[in-house]
Amino acid sequence: MRPSGRSPDQLREIRFTCNYTKHAEGSVLVEFGDTRVLCTASVESRVPFFLKGKGEGWITAEYGMLPRSTHDRMGREASRGKQGGRTLEIQRLIGRSLRAAVDLKALGENTITIDCDVIQADGGTRTASITGGFVALSIAIQHLLDKNKIKKNPLHGQVASVSVGIFQGVPVLDLDYAEDSNAETDMNVVMNDAGAFIEVQGTAEGHAFRREELDSMLELAEQGIRVLIEKQQQALDSV
Amino acid sequence: MRPSGRSPDQLREIRFTCNYTKHAEGSVLVEFGDTRVLCTASVESRVPFFLKGKGEGWITAEYGMLPRSTHDRMGREASRGKQGGRTLEIQRLIGRSLRAAVDLKALGENTITIDCDVIQADGGTRTASITGGFVALSIAIQHLLDKNKIKKNPLHGQVASVSVGIFQGVPVLDLDYAEDSNAETDMNVVMNDAGAFIEVQGTAEGHAFRREELDSMLELAEQGIRVLIEKQQQALDSV
Amino acid sequence: MRPSGRSPDQLREIRFTCNYTKHAEGSVLVEFGDTRVLCTASVESRVPFFLKGKGEGWITAEYGMLPRSTHDRMGREASRGKQGGRTLEIQRLIGRSLRAAVDLKALGENTITIDCDVIQADGGTRTASITGGFVALSIAIQHLLDKNKIKKNPLHGQVASVSVGIFQGVPVLDLDYAEDSNAETDMNVVMNDAGAFIEVQGTAEGHAFRREELDSMLELAEQGIRVLIEKQQQALDSV
Amino acid sequence: MRPSGRSPDQLREIRFTCNYTKHAEGSVLVEFGDTRVLCTASVESRVPFFLKGKGEGWITAEYGMLPRSTHDRMGREASRGKQGGRTLEIQRLIGRSLRAAVDLKALGENTITIDCDVIQADGGTRTASITGGFVALSIAIQHLLDKNKIKKNPLHGQVASVSVGIFQGVPVLDLDYAEDSNAETDMNVVMNDAGAFIEVQGTAEGHAFRREELDSMLELAEQGIRVLIEKQQQALDSV
Amino acid sequence: MRPSGRSPDQLREIRFTCNYTKHAEGSVLVEFGDTRVLCTASVESRVPFFLKGKGEGWITAEYGMLPRSTHDRMGREASRGKQGGRTLEIQRLIGRSLRAAVDLKALGENTITIDCDVIQADGGTRTASITGGFVALSIAIQHLLDKNKIKKNPLHGQVASVSVGIFQGVPVLDLDYAEDSNAETDMNVVMNDAGAFIEVQGTAEGHAFRREELDSMLELAEQGIRVLIEKQQQALDSV
Amino acid sequence: MRPSGRSPDQLREIRFTCNYTKHAEGSVLVEFGDTRVLCTASVESRVPFFLKGKGEGWITAEYGMLPRSTHDRMGREASRGKQGGRTLEIQRLIGRSLRAAVDLKALGENTITIDCDVIQADGGTRTASITGGFVALSIAIQHLLDKNKIKKNPLHGQVASVSVGIFQGVPVLDLDYAEDSNAETDMNVVMNDAGAFIEVQGTAEGHAFRREELDSMLELAEQGIRVLIEKQQQALDSV
Repeated sequence: MRPSGRSPDQLREIRFTCNYTKHAEGSVLVEFGDTRVLCTASVESRVPFFLKGKGEGWITAEYGMLPRSTHDRMGREASRGKQGGRTLEIQRLIGRSLRAAVDLKALGENTITIDCDVIQADGGTRTASITGGFVALSIAIQHLLDKNKIKKNPLHGQVASVSVGIFQGVPVLDLDYAEDSNAETDMNVVMNDAGAFIEVQGTAEGHAFRREELDSMLELAEQGIRVLIEKQQQALDSV
Repeated sequence: MRPSGRSPDQLREIRFTCNYTKHAEGSVLVEFGDTRVLCTASVESRVPFFLKGKGEGWITAEYGMLPRSTHDRMGREASRGKQGGRTLEIQRLIGRSLRAAVDLKALGENTITIDCDVIQADGGTRTASITGGFVALSIAIQHLLDKNKIKKNPLHGQVASVSVGIFQGVPVLDLDYAEDSNAETDMNVVMNDAGAFIEVQGTAEGHAFRREELDSMLELAEQGIRVLIEKQQQALDSV
Repeated sequence: MRPSGRSPDQLREIRFTCNYTKHAEGSVLVEFGDTRVLCTASVESRVPFFLKGKGEGWITAEYGMLPRSTHDRMGREASRGKQGGRTLEIQRLIGRSLRAAVDLKALGENTITIDCDVIQADGGTRTASITGGFVALSIAIQHLLDKNKIKKNPLHGQVASVSVGIFQGVPVLDLDYAEDSNAETDMNVVMNDAGAFIEVQGTAEGHAFRREELDSMLELAEQGIRVLIEKQQQALDSV
Repeated sequence: MRPSGRSPDQLREIRFTCNYTKHAEGSVLVEFGDTRVLCTASVESRVPFFLKGKGEGWITAEYGMLPRSTHDRMGREASRGKQGGRTLEIQRLIGRSLRAAVDLKALGENTITIDCDVIQADGGTRTASITGGFVALSIAIQHLLDKNKIKKNPLHGQVASVSVGIFQGVPVLDLDYAEDSNAETDMNVVMNDAGAFIEVQGTAEGHAFRREELDSMLELAEQGIRVLIEKQQQALDSV
Repeated sequence: MRPSGRSPDQLREIRFTCNYTKHAEGSVLVEFGDTRVLCTASVESRVPFFLKGKGEGWITAEYGMLPRSTHDRMGREASRGKQGGRTLEIQRLIGRSLRAAVDLKALGENTITIDCDVIQADGGTRTASITGGFVALSIAIQHLLDKNKIKKNPLHGQVASVSVGIFQGVPVLDLDYAEDSNAETDMNVVMNDAGAFIEVQGTAEGHAFRREELDSMLELAEQGIRVLIEKQQQALDSV
Repeated sequence: MRPSGRSPDQLREIRFTCNYTKHAEGSVLVEFGDTRVLCTASVESRVPFFLKGKGEGWITAEYGMLPRSTHDRMGREASRGKQGGRTLEIQRLIGRSLRAAVDLKALGENTITIDCDVIQADGGTRTASITGGFVALSIAIQHLLDKNKIKKNPLHGQVASVSVGIFQGVPVLDLDYAEDSNAETDMNVVMNDAGAFIEVQGTAEGHAFRREELDSMLELAEQGIRVLIEKQQQALDSV
């Protein structure tokens, strides 16, 4: 039995509140149960140094947790003077995952920065960030199309992400904190709407996982992501 | 005429959403019109180095703006590797202001950290932070009393804050961004429920202000803060 | 009775030693009693990034305390790797205060940096820095006029600053360290030679101050600043 | 055809030079073709703060590239003042992977730090670091057993790692730089000697990969790691 | 002919103003011509970590230049966030040189920090710092003896320093900035009152120097330091 | 008797392994007995800011120790976030020493960075770095000549370095760690192939050294450097 009473293949309640803030070109508050992440997409008409003059754009991401988004207060990274390894790892993952859905040439010399700030954490903040980040990105791109700043939609697909794991010997979908902190194995999967994989990151500190466990987890992830992709679409349709 | 259509002595709409997040001992989303700040109060049973063994507690504050809380995206302080001068100045102000309402001996050897994170900025983020910070602090202190961790309420008053300024020659209360960015003079006032001053910070970069202008601004502030103190009380009563 | 034996409205002995160092375009050692601050004004024919191409100049300030300017040795900020919040707050205040006296367009594309380095601290280092900083700035501007680098004097007034406070229930002018560390309320006031206010910063950590106390302090400050403005003028006349 | 002329399932030449340096408790120069990494294991009889008094030990890793280990010179991280996100990500991966082979209780209150410094890079530096890091760790643990500092061998298995990818449509094992920089998909796999997975990290920036491609890559990895585990064993036997 | 009109073996005018500031246990303003350095010695009754419990004391030094002590304004190290290599090198040299005159056991568990802050630079700031630093240190040690905090004078000699160089082919003593910036070779020498060497640092970026040039410079230095040692003694006698 | 059994004027075994790595334009592994330093020379066709447009090139150096190159593990500077004073001092010395052999005008607008990374330390790492750094630099310059990127050889001499000291009252050449850590005096000497001095740095923390001791050490150094210069030449001839 899962602590939340969910069945092994059941997602938490998923909610997208689009245009949650007024300044960003795209914004959404994404909720996976009690995990709440504010994703904003900011458009700037410049590109990073390494793309100067190539006629391409860039998608990048930053991630942060509010100090008391977690059970115990965490030190503020701005005050400690640097972002931790976990933060850097997560924001690199978000950026790579979203770039996989974008034709950077069609974006022109624009940079879109996806900021994912965790308001409340209850497990799965990185998968919520990718899933919500895609929605914020889509709204911002629609904004660029509406303003005629780009001609062609640079999105060539949808991207969503979910976690899977082995909890008390059973493969489960979309782990919350109670499960995550006790899981034997934890895997984050990012996929597109064509059912192909963009990222697969599985970790076993305690119990190494066998090939058949890996296979079960991948199947749960495929199934969960199919649902998330539909929910993203519904949210975007209602904007 | 003010850009928002308000009369010179009219506050924006003020809202407090108490217990906005679930982990913090006290939390509130405070809104002054479109300015939205999440204030959390985190209790830790330890004190900073300089208070070790003195039998007193401490109240401190940290302040941050989400990168796209503002009209244009600001660089993330965690990623730049340091907090800017404005941030440090504001969080020192919030901490001093809230300490003025607390008997640190009655708090015992506990530290309460008030995190004020700006979700959306439209002028007056520091005054909203102090006003909301007091609410979060009160909820956290009630939590300590309920759990019998302290015997006596260390709060000996209420604290609230508002900005006043001279906009197009007229003294106005609670400036929004459209006014703030064009004001000749800007003043932040912090007061307690006994009508006494805790902080007065007035600045004139362009037009130096005369004593009678200072007096008019102080009167507007006194009047605005009286209203804010009532609204804080209502919010706390409904928790 | 004040620890120094001064009457409540009496300034400490004020001294300006102009051209204290030889390299700076303007320099002065300012003394408010035992508080000694070296102020230098350095002219550079460039402007910060945000003013490029606008035909305007800039005035900025930096502040530092020598490690043993204080009673106990303070860690060197250069060695700790960052300037503290108090330092940043003070140098922002000095810069704002001095800019209030300058027509930045008439300054042309020049930057003048005012460095205020505290040789010995005995209370009131920020007010001495502003008061001395104005003198160093004036000498540097005269240097620019003498060298025909600017045509018109960009100074449109004088700026000086003093602290006031409530010490043992009595409003007093120009607090020294013995008073400052025990004051119930401390206020720094910056004014121009027209008797208008540029900055007013009053703080009460312990005892919140009432409106009539604020009024008494402001009157003492106005009176003290009138004297400081005369002494600045005498110092500049003798250069 | 692979640029190196290898068959798709062929590892590069693998070499371990044990005890490459004289000060470390364990050291090895590991070579995967032209990729050369110096791995040292340093034992200290203390534990990090979060393990104080728990009677357990710790395994941690640090990773660095010499500035000219790469085709173009990279800035030295020590001189830039921080480790980049890629570095932090890799050293977290090495630490997690090696901890998966160790009974931390049996290690006692000792910390073993695995330093992986890349002398020359030609693709696969992280998989070489894990594979060589295990050898250095084993030598250091034998040293502790020989000196009677621990009673029981805390190693409960072997750990090795290899990369796999899709290069020009074909799944290949152990990518060198020429392949890595052009691969459509890149996956790093860490396994133990029981054939179970410790980490699986697959990334597709360009071409998302299908389930059957993932399966082929995993099979190549399993096969390659079996060989690496044998070579580790031979190297350790000859110490 | 030297730019200053001095003969090759002539020191600049040397002045020591003892007790220049009031807070430090020892302080002196040392002047070598237009080079002015404020040296303070601060006593703290603690020792650095590596000396805990050994019953010995420590002497350390810090060095800084005020931003406009130089011809052109230099960036403030506190604001750049780190001390430069030149600063670190100089403060290490000052510390080593002064420790050479002190019996650290006789100092007891006290740390004396020598702060050398350059008010005005005109060449030779490091040699002035060592020579003045010794005077500040002596005053502070006398203070400890007077207060009965130590029983025995830990000073077992005097230390002074001077620069020598080859300027336009001629060996010269105590270079000022006009010479220093054009010298072919520059050497800093630290000696004790017994005529023995503590540090010799000679550098030739342009013209490598021959053994006979080295010998001439060393003789000039020995002669100059003899004079400095006398002047230190006179200054200390008059305190 | 020296711990190693060497006679006082005997160098350790000196080895140069040229082209030790494949990416750098010049590389060498230099060994002075058990001290092993990897020196690489990297050419970039750009110059630092202060040389822009002057038609000259630049030679600079960076130095680092692998964490376990030493007897006890040292913290990694990249992870501590800054290079220590000793590191900065050494890399400044290496850069100055090598620039003394180069006609920067003949180098054209190229920068050559010499990275000296200590693989194993056993005393004398800075002198090995200079001596090996010269070899790496020469190989890189030959590479530029071979590729016709420069017309004329900018090297106008050879540079090598050795340490000397007083160990148990006897002047000795090329100290190893056992001697270095117990020496009364330690001196690093850099000379060119014409027998002239580029740097002389002698330090006495414990026992101040007399002029005749200085003379003996300089003679030993001259003799040792003559041998090193020959060995450099042989190594370069065999490339």
